[in-house]
Amino acid sequence: MGLRSCLGVLMCLTSLIPCTSPAGFFQLPSPWGWTCENGRSVKKDAGGMENLVTLNTCKLTCGPYGMLWPRPREVMLGKTVATFLPDKVSPIVTCGAMKETCAMVDEALVIFQDNLQRYHPDYGTRDKATLWQDSYNPHTVTHTLQVDVTVSGGERDLNLNTDESYELSVSTKEGVTLAIIIADNFFGARHALETLSQLVEYHESEGSLMIVTSAKIKDVPAFRYRGLLLDTARNFMSVETIERTLDAMAASKLNTLHLHLTDSHSFPLYLPSLPNLAYYGAYDSRKFYTPETLRHLQKYARVRGVRLMPEIDAPAHVGNGFQWGPKEGLGNLTVCANQEPWQEFCVEPPCGQFNLANPHVYNVLGQIYRELVDIFNPMDIYHYGGDEVNLNCWNTTDEIVQWMMNNNFGLTENSYYEQWGVFQEKARQLLANATLAKARPEPLGLIWTSHLTEQGRNERYLDPNKYVIQIWTTKQDPVIKQLLEQGYRVIFSNHDAWYLDCGFGAWVGEGNNWCSPYKGWQLIYDNSPHEIATQLTGNPQTQSILGGEVAMWSEQTDDASLDAKLWPRSAALGERLWSNPTTGWYDAEPRFVHHRQRLVSRGINADRIQPEWCHQNEGHCYL
Amino acid sequence: MGLRSCLGVLMCLTSLIPCTSPAGFFQLPSPWGWTCENGRSVKKDAGGMENLVTLNTCKLTCGPYGMLWPRPREVMLGKTVATFLPDKVSPIVTCGAMKETCAMVDEALVIFQDNLQRYHPDYGTRDKATLWQDSYNPHTVTHTLQVDVTVSGGERDLNLNTDESYELSVSTKEGVTLAIIIADNFFGARHALETLSQLVEYHESEGSLMIVTSAKIKDVPAFRYRGLLLDTARNFMSVETIERTLDAMAASKLNTLHLHLTDSHSFPLYLPSLPNLAYYGAYDSRKFYTPETLRHLQKYARVRGVRLMPEIDAPAHVGNGFQWGPKEGLGNLTVCANQEPWQEFCVEPPCGQFNLANPHVYNVLGQIYRELVDIFNPMDIYHYGGDEVNLNCWNTTDEIVQWMMNNNFGLTENSYYEQWGVFQEKARQLLANATLAKARPEPLGLIWTSHLTEQGRNERYLDPNKYVIQIWTTKQDPVIKQLLEQGYRVIFSNHDAWYLDCGFGAWVGEGNNWCSPYKGWQLIYDNSPHEIATQLTGNPQTQSILGGEVAMWSEQTDDASLDAKLWPRSAALGERLWSNPTTGWYDAEPRFVHHRQRLVSRGINADRIQPEWCHQNEGHCYL
Repeated sequence: MGLRSCLGVLMCLTSLIPCTSPAGFFQLPSPWGWTCENGRSVKKDAGGMENLVTLNTCKLTCGPYGMLWPRPREVMLGKTVATFLPDKVSPIVTCGAMKETCAMVDEALVIFQDNLQRYHPDYGTRDKATLWQDSYNPHTVTHTLQVDVTVSGGERDLNLNTDESYELSVSTKEGVTLAIIIADNFFGARHALETLSQLVEYHESEGSLMIVTSAKIKDVPAFRYRGLLLDTARNFMSVETIERTLDAMAASKLNTLHLHLTDSHSFPLYLPSLPNLAYYGAYDSRKFYTPETLRHLQKYARVRGVRLMPEIDAPAHVGNGFQWGPKEGLGNLTVCANQEPWQEFCVEPPCGQFNLANPHVYNVLGQIYRELVDIFNPMDIYHYGGDEVNLNCWNTTDEIVQWMMNNNFGLTENSYYEQWGVFQEKARQLLANATLAKARPEPLGLIWTSHLTEQGRNERYLDPNKYVIQIWTTKQDPVIKQLLEQGYRVIFSNHDAWYLDCGFGAWVGEGNNWCSPYKGWQLIYDNSPHEIATQLTGNPQTQSILGGEVAMWSEQTDDASLDAKLWPRSAALGERLWSNPTTGWYDAEPRFVHHRQRLVSRGINADRIQPEWCHQNEGHCYL
Repeated sequence: MGLRSCLGVLMCLTSLIPCTSPAGFFQLPSPWGWTCENGRSVKKDAGGMENLVTLNTCKLTCGPYGMLWPRPREVMLGKTVATFLPDKVSPIVTCGAMKETCAMVDEALVIFQDNLQRYHPDYGTRDKATLWQDSYNPHTVTHTLQVDVTVSGGERDLNLNTDESYELSVSTKEGVTLAIIIADNFFGARHALETLSQLVEYHESEGSLMIVTSAKIKDVPAFRYRGLLLDTARNFMSVETIERTLDAMAASKLNTLHLHLTDSHSFPLYLPSLPNLAYYGAYDSRKFYTPETLRHLQKYARVRGVRLMPEIDAPAHVGNGFQWGPKEGLGNLTVCANQEPWQEFCVEPPCGQFNLANPHVYNVLGQIYRELVDIFNPMDIYHYGGDEVNLNCWNTTDEIVQWMMNNNFGLTENSYYEQWGVFQEKARQLLANATLAKARPEPLGLIWTSHLTEQGRNERYLDPNKYVIQIWTTKQDPVIKQLLEQGYRVIFSNHDAWYLDCGFGAWVGEGNNWCSPYKGWQLIYDNSPHEIATQLTGNPQTQSILGGEVAMWSEQTDDASLDAKLWPRSAALGERLWSNPTTGWYDAEPRFVHHRQRLVSRGINADRIQPEWCHQNEGHCYL
């Protein structure tokens, strides 16, 4: 077989003998080309056709949204492309005297340019400096991309009131494509750069990048909270894995990484004033986060338009990490920790709940909060956890029963809920004190639906001005209607659509896990909070529904498999919450499949949802 | 926070302030240790205990099988370990004048030593030369591992008669651990090296390797065919991905990689005498295998104890790649290719079947076979495919109907099955001619269960001496009993247990895919061909059942997610077919979970099946 090198992309291929690309890949030419018909890219034999284009070219310019994901609110795209190289990108940033904003835009531009580099199919096999030099056609690739970014406000941190809107216009003349980005603040500008990067693709026959020559986009998200929960306690997640997750969230315009940091299984958080928590609670000598690590991640997230929200689940879902004192006659900090048979004391092994009879619990929790407030600064939102308290645990623990009786609290179900409510109020005050010490207002609290959030109890313990309820039951649960009618703000994570851990094999016993089956991207995409609310209450509840979140509980994933479980499915949530489409998954499919390819180009091991044939033959993989 | 470096592993940690390892990781000490109780590793607080050991130490020496996967036929393991460094391994190979065997053993020893290196938790973050130098305790790690390998026979290629047995003994005295390996041929010796590598682990507190100080193992597989099907046609798999798959197969003692190379979706195979197949059939300019690529993979596989078995599915599951001539009045090589509505002509898009009315089909197929026989040399086994022929496709295609009538074949169902049978017999003869030209016997043919393999038809078309039937229906299917009673040899791939693509979202339509739910490792492990045969026929059919195979159809996976879908589940098949245990998954769980960690250390992105807490607290994650 000939081992000729490919001069330019496939330019040498006058016969059907493969040549080798600069990175050492064999390459073959192809007889196929594409044309846009009725908004779909259609594959044709180039032998019999004029005016065919490459697959990527067709995808960028066919249909109202090209390959944008999530689709913008208002968009008009041109039908032609211009080729350019990633080193021919010249940015101009207008950010006034807002030094930090200017620096963040500069950093976002570096990420933008790296994302463009990554469209090259050989990215990662050669150094960036030489990646393109042998592959492009110097006769046709002569264009420049100028990016003008204007940011008018200096908002440094993303919060629930941040204006994430932006405007982006693209026009082309005389060898220059000009992209103009206008945003109220850094976060809108960042989203605009993400959108701009999605008007770009690799040009398969020119060996260069290409960009849509004209575009007019006005964009704003439908929901202000677009979250992804990552559980770092059932299995630990490395910093690199969290960074990859943030990269993919940025690509899909999700804006909140909810870190379920700790659970009864492990406490992977090194707090300098409470080193015993990690000493006893980390899975091994390396599996913990330091404050520096978390601060690094917070900065990494921010420049990608994402806020971190920590959760130290309490008063249940605690255990390992709390084995140390103070015990002076007060019992352990937790009860039922690792207790057997676990089925009697919790929902999954290992069990564990805070020991309400030991007042040191509040000293420790207060100190944890002070450390958290110091790390996640400014903390405008915090998740208390608050799910799955097992009354039988408390009610079968001598020291708790004794304490309940000694204080005349009673031993009924309601007595325990009352004390849970008291715990929650104390926790809230501890956190409020911790932020007050930093001269910051009390964070808005998130809390999972539970028996405490039911009508009849929530009025007593959970002030709707201070708490947002995260719904994790099913979309039929009448509690949704109750909460909305009581005036609570809510975030949807109904497990029948948005739990990403469902559908794998059981990890206790055999068969499949509890929330099987697997939630396909179509189900995730079509799970519309406004529609659910309308069905339950007759009203879309646009003011009360802050947004939604997919949950990646990590009993059955870690660094090795996380990407494929999160992606591309979480991107389906991205479009649901950013665009809130009235159309269903079927219309989104070609863009979604292409976005998955984009995630892979960015280093994410996203799952494949269809044969590549479907990607090349849009609309033919249907039932 | 202190950024002191860790001298030795955690030796500096007199306080609870993290130090940084040579590779830059923060590390904390741990209060935990383990002890072996009733064959289980039990976690204890080291504060109150003497004689605790590290988790890996405990796992290596606790229970009858240590952490061996699959478990050997006969095994006795010592209860202590000796620490050593990977550069203190000295091999002695006795292989007579069998030059190729000697070279293969040398290569297997290189792989063995690399696998030992990979046990270091920082593997991949530093170069191998410096990986260990700062981490081990020089006062206690002074041992040498001597590996004596004696191979008596020169068998070069794995086939269904290869003796894969081996003996391995390990003993320790005076600072040397001696491992003696005796095998009939290279393949047994390779398995012994794999087993030996599983008597080794990273010692968490010494920063070195450790090996069980004594062992006596006699081992032989229960089944001679232990397969894994990889589909490279629905989505393409890179060479690196296939190499990783082979690495993990080697670690799990699977011995046959069944390459479902082509399908109606794509033809990713560049054959120099038929370049049009890849020109029309490859997904893009890079997604094809050359003969050199496949020869490389064959060698890569062989030294890992794995044989490659190609399948060019026919006469259905063909289409893309065959669009070129010869058409002179004879129609295309395939019919129904990409035809719509696909539901009428095939089981999934895109459709396509060979055009039986065009005799050029046999010229092309014969040429494909000649090329395959040249690449996969020696070819002692070949998979014809032969599944899911859609009669409606042929019976609605004018040229086929015309041809059937012109030749007086009739147009009944049976007429078409008859012609399918004729096709199969011609295909077999073409392959036999191709091997005959190389002075090799006709390969044993594998074929999927179908209407052609049903009693009443199979007697006419499928000689039990020439064909092995691969069962892909359910374990209840009466066809299994029929085939066994007819004297066919069979390979099990019943989809209700051994199809790894099941349980994800649908890729046509919505909901979940056709063979949902997901097959957990427990189901895979407990799927015993001998038990199934006994239930159906009253006899375990040990002679007729050659083995089994997991199938990874690739509609919904590619390079990015393959590992997590294949592994560790395919390793459950490894133990089922190597050890054929009479005990169920529950007894195997701690070893299985540890083997998963081993796969990850070897660079495989294997899925996590449990919280790490379960790995550290054996037997506590139960239902």
